[in-house]
This record gives sequence, structure tokens and C-alpha cells, in this order.
Amino acid sequence: MPDPAPNAPAHDAYATLARRFARMGHIANALGILGWDKDTTMPSGAAHSRAESIATLSVLHHGIMTGPDMADLLAAAPEPADAWQAANLREMRRLHAHAMAVPPDLVEAASRAASRCEMAWRSARRDSDFASLLPSLTEVLERTREVAQAKAAALGLSPYDALLDQYDPGTRQTDIDPVFDRLAAELPGLISGALEQQRAHPAPTLPRGPFATSAQAALGQTMMRTVGFDMTRGRLDVSLHPFCGGAEDDVRITTRYEEGDFLNALMGVLHESGHALYEQGLPRDWHSQPVGAARGMSLHESQSLLMEMQVCRSAEFMAWAAPVIADALGGDAQAPEWSADTLHRQVTRVRPGFIRVDADEVTYPAHILVRYEMETALINGQMALRDLPAAFNDRIHALLGLHVPEDRLGCLQDIHWPSGSWGYFPTYTLGAMIAAQLREAAQKAHPALMDDIARGDFSTLLSWLRTHVHHRASSVSMRDIVRDATGAPPGPDAYLRHLRHRYCGE
Amino acid sequence: MPDPAPNAPAHDAYATLARRFARMGHIANALGILGWDKDTTMPSGAAHSRAESIATLSVLHHGIMTGPDMADLLAAAPEPADAWQAANLREMRRLHAHAMAVPPDLVEAASRAASRCEMAWRSARRDSDFASLLPSLTEVLERTREVAQAKAAALGLSPYDALLDQYDPGTRQTDIDPVFDRLAAELPGLISGALEQQRAHPAPTLPRGPFATSAQAALGQTMMRTVGFDMTRGRLDVSLHPFCGGAEDDVRITTRYEEGDFLNALMGVLHESGHALYEQGLPRDWHSQPVGAARGMSLHESQSLLMEMQVCRSAEFMAWAAPVIADALGGDAQAPEWSADTLHRQVTRVRPGFIRVDADEVTYPAHILVRYEMETALINGQMALRDLPAAFNDRIHALLGLHVPEDRLGCLQDIHWPSGSWGYFPTYTLGAMIAAQLREAAQKAHPALMDDIARGDFSTLLSWLRTHVHHRASSVSMRDIVRDATGAPPGPDAYLRHLRHRYCGE
Repeated sequence: MPDPAPNAPAHDAYATLARRFARMGHIANALGILGWDKDTTMPSGAAHSRAESIATLSVLHHGIMTGPDMADLLAAAPEPADAWQAANLREMRRLHAHAMAVPPDLVEAASRAASRCEMAWRSARRDSDFASLLPSLTEVLERTREVAQAKAAALGLSPYDALLDQYDPGTRQTDIDPVFDRLAAELPGLISGALEQQRAHPAPTLPRGPFATSAQAALGQTMMRTVGFDMTRGRLDVSLHPFCGGAEDDVRITTRYEEGDFLNALMGVLHESGHALYEQGLPRDWHSQPVGAARGMSLHESQSLLMEMQVCRSAEFMAWAAPVIADALGGDAQAPEWSADTLHRQVTRVRPGFIRVDADEVTYPAHILVRYEMETALINGQMALRDLPAAFNDRIHALLGLHVPEDRLGCLQDIHWPSGSWGYFPTYTLGAMIAAQLREAAQKAHPALMDDIARGDFSTLLSWLRTHVHHRASSVSMRDIVRDATGAPPGPDAYLRHLRHRYCGE
Repeated sequence: MPDPAPNAPAHDAYATLARRFARMGHIANALGILGWDKDTTMPSGAAHSRAESIATLSVLHHGIMTGPDMADLLAAAPEPADAWQAANLREMRRLHAHAMAVPPDLVEAASRAASRCEMAWRSARRDSDFASLLPSLTEVLERTREVAQAKAAALGLSPYDALLDQYDPGTRQTDIDPVFDRLAAELPGLISGALEQQRAHPAPTLPRGPFATSAQAALGQTMMRTVGFDMTRGRLDVSLHPFCGGAEDDVRITTRYEEGDFLNALMGVLHESGHALYEQGLPRDWHSQPVGAARGMSLHESQSLLMEMQVCRSAEFMAWAAPVIADALGGDAQAPEWSADTLHRQVTRVRPGFIRVDADEVTYPAHILVRYEMETALINGQMALRDLPAAFNDRIHALLGLHVPEDRLGCLQDIHWPSGSWGYFPTYTLGAMIAAQLREAAQKAHPALMDDIARGDFSTLLSWLRTHVHHRASSVSMRDIVRDATGAPPGPDAYLRHLRHRYCGE
């Protein structure tokens, strides 16, 4: 498949670009499988060999993207008449602009700084020793600010918006600030309201394990099929940290089993299944083209949270699921500890805590608000890194009423900052908001939606998501997808209504 | 890692080449994992997406090998003083010559013909219908002859030797003919002698299953560890057809379990472990460089056959293994059906049959001799393809005394010819010969070698193979490796002695 000659007419430029981006897509699929294998299957001694393969494929991908005539081709391609082709060209230009904005030396320096800092972070977290992390984290922050400034200059954005745009194309700080301000104002009242309502009921008495891993895995697969996961185009496996990865037509989710607690793994499977349904629902005609990709991390997170939080932690879902779960795990479906009410109360339990990834639906946004405040201040140069622990702990106290006793349980808990992923945190809570908004819209279109769920029938929900979210891929902006699907741009109202309804009985 | 400027001095040419070949090595490692995954793990619906990734990585690999300045770099590189670097440069030139010899159009035509023919072969074999295969197999043969002629012209070899050289660098028809003539002369007598000796003993009465797959897999891993397989740099998994694949420091073998018969899977694991020990024993300093690769398919097959046939089908090995096997599979080690004698007689049983892959050690070479005669005659234009079935069946009858009742059990049984792998078959029997020769030499150096095996101690054997075969990689020719290790070039004597000793009591 050679490219056309350099003097080929301009209308071939789009075809040439499509071929090159397809090749990059195929490399990305290979990287998806190599990454999955690394985290699930690979023997420990292969780490170096695998890192070499992944680095080489990444260099080849980058080499195609930044090839010498890429800019000319992108400039020469005439605007396609077809809307999807036009959107594809727009996405090609966006990806190319991101890739070209940062000089190769800075790319490498940032990558090295992150590798060094990730290593330092493992011991710093273990020892709760922020001081030991400060030098390498300072370097990561400096390199990240340089990347942000380079991308800001090239893309005409503010530095923080340039970082955000890598994960959530088109989302800006000006979109986030008013929403997060509103959340910050409402959250403390919401949390105390939820805790008050919860005190009115006894804590649920749960079934006692051990629950065999094989039975939990079989249950996970049953649930995947129930929500609509296509098992001929994906898998469920085990990894230390659950994820959704793999490749096109090969979407691989993972979970981790504990014999004493089946709900963690099960809710994890349902969460990752939400991500996977999005990937499996992207239009196959546009596979390996930029326009065929999922539309950013907020919308991706909305799909996992819609499935896990909105739907599968509902009383309706548990009414159907409780006997299925009891049956799969050898429990007595008639016993009170296996009842829908017990399981539903357990999966909607609110307990303010220090660790973000263990947080419930009500307190989770507080963790994100704190991180967003901290990282915008740090990127914009309004705070010194040495002041981070105290500022972090102050805000946790303000929002959750907790005193962080050591940094291991505070600003050292997440890998995002050490690994250079600044600008990522807000997508979690934007995703939670969009999930509530989409669920409301789906239910408005199909008033019996939750009755279907209560019969284990996800077809109405999935079909609505396919049409209004999945099939649109990156053909329009995330804001337009949400607006077209719900009648309003992404906002906090549906999310706050959902939390008040589920947790405060309003 | 940019290449040096085009006007860089010649002594940088070698460094540039080493960097490029390393990159090709990393791509080959990625392809090894993607191929393993395809055959063990991949969901069925991912076939198309995976084929695209594999094709793209192959094109990128080929693109580096045939890059515009590759020939100049290979010509400009001065002869390195270091023997391994010199051998590396020689191997780079050999691989480049092979890659450049065939014009891209012919590469593609040959690949398409093979894909079409493989598809036709699946139904032709099922229906035992050679006529339906004839058109597509004719096209494969024609394209293969064109490839052979192109490589012959570029490499200064005969057409068949040019094909052979792809799988077994340096081996020529003139090396094979006298050896195979000798085997053809001796084989009928050997087979009848073996059958006669076998008639003197009753057929072994084997343990009755079912043998749980999980217990068989655990036994396989025990045996892998026993022979020296490094489980931190490899794995055992399940596939339809057993193979040894994966990547550097990540050697993955597979087998297939039947609940009624544990010996097939077990012997398969030991066979693939022989291949794997070779890969794990290649010098790590030369990973991803041409000189660091295994030295051709005959030597590779010698390592699997030395392990499986020479060592693990011996009475000595079974003396140690029988109670381990009984214990792993829940058998009674004291019962006669689990005795070393019973298991040893079963794994050395001779039974002439139609199917090559099911053949025992004594009749196997007959299958190879027939295929070698056929494929040399076809490539050299001395036989028409339509005459293949009759000629094939005649020779099977002459060597094994069997009348092939249908082509499904004759010339249609193997995928090699439909898939374009002409010149591969002789490496199986060359490997069997070399295995016997290496085993004799190892035993001469360590007279207690088989006493160690009878205690389940493979360290002496493995250490000898590491020094005399594995660590040499592709630093010298296969003939030199065998000569240095055994004092003689590859020949049939040790192999015939082994067969007469084990099967004819001589």
C-alpha cells in the first residue's frame, strides 16, 4: 500500500491521510493488546523486552504522525463534502497539532521525568514521605508546565486547557469552574443529608464468604452478557488494577477477585462493561480512523458510571440481580442477607473516607474537587508544590470533615500527578454528571426503562445509548452529543437530583 | 533515536544497522505476542482487526529492511574486528538479500495465492477432493517457483536450495540427498525389525481416564520446570495446534488436552519445552540482533526432538517420571498400568500409519522422505502437480507398506504446500538426526548423563546444550555448530544407531 506520488492531485490527500491514520490505528490496536497482556498474562522476566516493543511501536506511530509531508497533506486536503469525512479531517488536524506542538526533546524529557517520579512515588507513598517526592515531582510539574505552554501556544488555549484538551477534546476550565463551584457549595449538605437518612436504617448484614473466584468470574460473565457485552468481541480477565483495554473488536476488561467480598469485583465488572459497551458500539465503518474514536474521557467515564452507578446500584437492578447473584455464588436467595434490599443498601452505602478509589457515589466528587483546585493552581503557578500537602488536607477537611493523618492517605495516594497525567481528574466528575443527565433523558424517552432493568432487560437502554452516544463517535463535540441527547449542555442538575433522590429521599 | 546524518563516517554504518535491526527485532517480538494471542486467547470476532495489525507491523518491518539506504549501509560497513559483530553483519546481509531478492508484486501475489489456497485446502481435505485444490495449488506452486527462481538468481543457489535457505540457512540439497537416500534404503528393514521386536511383548495396558485438564496442566508445568524451563520468562497455555512462540524473554508454549489420554499432551509439552529451552538459552546480549537468533529450523527441531524423543521417551526418564505422573494424575504408582515399563512401552510403540503428525519415531522419517521427493520434483519441474496423489501414494506404499485409501490421508493432510512453505519438510528429519548426534556427544562428554535423567536431574544435559548449541546462536553455521559439538558434520549414523538400539534391540 504505497502512498501516491508527491505530485498527486490534492483530492488524493484525504485518501493518503486516511491510509496513514488507519496504519496508526492498527499500531494502536497492537499496543492495546500488548498492554493488556503486560497487565494480565506476561511473565515477570519479560518486562524489559515488552518495554522495548512498546517503545518501538510508539516511535513508529509518532513517526507516521509527524512525518515530513504530514502538514502539507493536512493543509492540501480539500474540505470533504461528507460530514463524517469532514469531521475525520478535523480530528486528524487536531491530533497532528497536539503531536507537533511539543518539541521531541521536551517529549522525551517529560517522559523520563515521569518514569523517575513514578518510581520515587512508590516508596514515597509507602513511607508517607512527601519530602522525598518533592524533587522529582517538581521536575514533572515543570516539564508538564512546559508541555502545557507549548501546546497552549500552538492551539490558542490556556495552559491548563491545553492539558485538559488531551483527555477531553473541547472541554475548557470555563466549562468546569461554575459546575464545580456549585458542587462544592452543595456537597457538604448533601453528604450530611445522606448520612442522616442512612442512620435511620440498620447497617446491612451481608452474606459471609468465601466466594470462589471461579464462581465470581462466571457471575461476572453472566452480568456482562446481561448488559449487552458481545463476548465474541471481548473478554473478561484478572489484573491488579481493573481496566478496559484491548483493541477494536477485541475489548478486554479486567477485575480483581477477593474471596471475602464479591460486590467489589462485580461492581467493577459492571463499571468496566460500561466502558466496553461504548467501545463495542463505535461505528465499525470508521474503525481505525480518528473520527471513529470515543469522544474523550468525560463521555467515556459517563458510560461506565451510567452502567455502574445510575443503573446497577439501583433498587430496580438489584431486584432482578439479587437472586441471580445468590444462585451463582451458592447462596440462599430467600435468606435476608441475599435479599435485594440488603445488597442495594450495601452498594449505596455512604461513608466519607480518605481514599478516592474507595469512595462512594456521594463523597467521590469531593475528592475530585480538591484535586482539580490543586492542579489548576499548580499548573497556573498560583501555588508552590511544597504547599500542596497542607492545602490538600485543608480542602479535604472543608468538604468531607476529615483530618488527613498522613500524606499517604492524602496527596500521595494517586499516581496521576507523578505519572504526568495533569488535567485528567475533572473528567471523572464530569462523567458522573453526564451519566445522570443521559440516564434522565433515556428515561424520559422510555418511561418504562427502569422496569425493563428490573427484569434484567438492558436492550432499551443499550439501544438508546447506541443511537445517542456510541454511534456518534467523534463526529461532533462532546457538548453537542450531550446537548443532542438530553436537550441541554453538560451540567450538574440531573446529577444533584439523582444524589438527592437516591441518598436524601427527596 | 534518529539515525546519523547520511554523510556520517562509514564506521557508524554498523551502529546504524544494529539500531535498525533492533527495531525490527522489537517489531518481531510484538508480532510473536500478537500471534500467540490469536491462537490462544483472542475472541473470534477480532480476526479481522488482528489481521490488520499483523499486516501493518509486517509492512513496517519489511519497510525498515528494504529502506532506500539499507544496501548502501550494508556495503559501507567495514568488517568488524569482533567475531560476533562480523557474524551479525553477515546475517544482516543474508536477511537483506533474501528480502530484496523478490519484487514486491511477487511477494504480494505469492501471499494472496497462499491465502486463497489455504482456504480451498480446508474443504478439499475434509472432502478428500484433490481436484478441487488443483487450480489454487497450481497457482501457489507457480508463484513459489518464481520466488525460488528470483532468490536463486540473487543468492547464487539452485531454486530448491533458495527455498531451503529460508528455513535452514546454509543447508543444500547436496547435503540432504545422500542422507535421505541412506534412510530410504535402511528404513523398511528398520521398521520391520521394530515391529518384530514389538510382537515379542504384549501391548501395554494403560491407566484409564478421565484425567482432569487442570491436573494435566499442573503436571506439564512440573515437567517444564524439571527440564529447565524458566517460568519467569515463559508460559504454558492451550491452543488447537501445539506450538512454541512468543517473544524474547517471553517464550510461550502450548498444548492441547484430551481427558482420555494424558501422554499426548505431556509429550507435546516436553517437545515444545525443547524448542523453548533453545530460545531461552540464546545469548541475551545479542537479543533482537540477527546473530542472536536460533540457527535455523533443523537445529531448532533437533532441540525439541532431543528433549522429547532422545531423552523423555527413554526408559531412564520414565523410571523417574512414572511415579511423578501417577501422583499428579491421582493414579496408584504401584499399579502395573502406571509403571515405568508400561508408560515407556507406550511412548515407544511403533505403528505404521497414514498421518505424519501422529507417526512414531521409527516411521516418521518415511513421511518426510516422501514429501521431500515430491516437493523437489515439483519445484524442479520434473513432475506435474496432477500426478502428485499417485506418486505420493506409491512412495508411501514402498516405504511403509500401506495403501493410501483417500487423499485426505495422503497428500492433502499437511498445510505446508497450500500455505507456500515449500522447502520446510526436510528440516524435521534433519533435526531428528542432529538430535541423536548431539545426544551421543553429550553422553560421551558426560557418561553419567542418563543416570542424571533417571533422577530427574536435567542440569548436566542443559548445561551442555547451553554451551555447545544455545549460546552460539547464529554466530557460525549450523554445520559448524554440529561439527564443533560432535566432531562430525550432520549425518545419519547416530540416528540409525539410536533407532536400532531402542527399537531393534541391537
